[in-house]
Amino acid sequence: MGLLFQTTVIDCNDARRVGGFWAELLGMPLESDDDGTEHWIDFGPDGRDLLFLTVPDRKSGKNRLHIDLRPDDQAAEVERALALGARHVDIGQGQQTWVVLADPEGNEFCILRALKPDE
Amino acid sequence: MGLLFQTTVIDCNDARRVGGFWAELLGMPLESDDDGTEHWIDFGPDGRDLLFLTVPDRKSGKNRLHIDLRPDDQAAEVERALALGARHVDIGQGQQTWVVLADPEGNEFCILRALKPDE
Repeated sequence: MGLLFQTTVIDCNDARRVGGFWAELLGMPLESDDDGTEHWIDFGPDGRDLLFLTVPDRKSGKNRLHIDLRPDDQAAEVERALALGARHVDIGQGQQTWVVLADPEGNEFCILRALKPDE
Repeated sequence: MGLLFQTTVIDCNDARRVGGFWAELLGMPLESDDDGTEHWIDFGPDGRDLLFLTVPDRKSGKNRLHIDLRPDDQAAEVERALALGARHVDIGQGQQTWVVLADPEGNEFCILRALKPDE
């Protein structure tokens, strides 16, 4: 095909810290370049990896893009995320089936409900 | 595993329009729910899909997350993206191997260089 969806890139003030959080959360290794400025999680040859870049500007407002995660056990994974450094955030979502959290630099993400076996 | 990287979600003012652009760009079908409020591109059972949600708030500033695309022919894919409604944007990137574009609502994305056969 002409274009492969290669990567979702996250600007960070501390890419190693944020990348480390996401790697732990997803149970994947964090890879780094030689000078330690770029860190990524490689999901394999079909792309759609995660790349963490250090930038000087700070996060401002709610992110226009965010990541949704599918748990096998929502409550357990929310607790695990909080223990890794996530926090609950209120972006006006109200009562939903998903839980809105933010990573150590405030990037919003959602832990969806677990799917039933027949879904 | 405990958490699957399910989806990268893009907030849009017109989710059908933005989703339609990305579906054309990636050569994938755009799927929609019954009432037309959610649109998505499904990459299969291992997740990492794209979901387009209509929200009232406008994009503000440079996105903290963005998508990188890998072309087989960079110049041709940049031209194709422009014809579909993308535009060049300057986020201070200077001269790079990648080309920075924005989708019809200004969401930045990059078309990387093509990989050589032995890369």
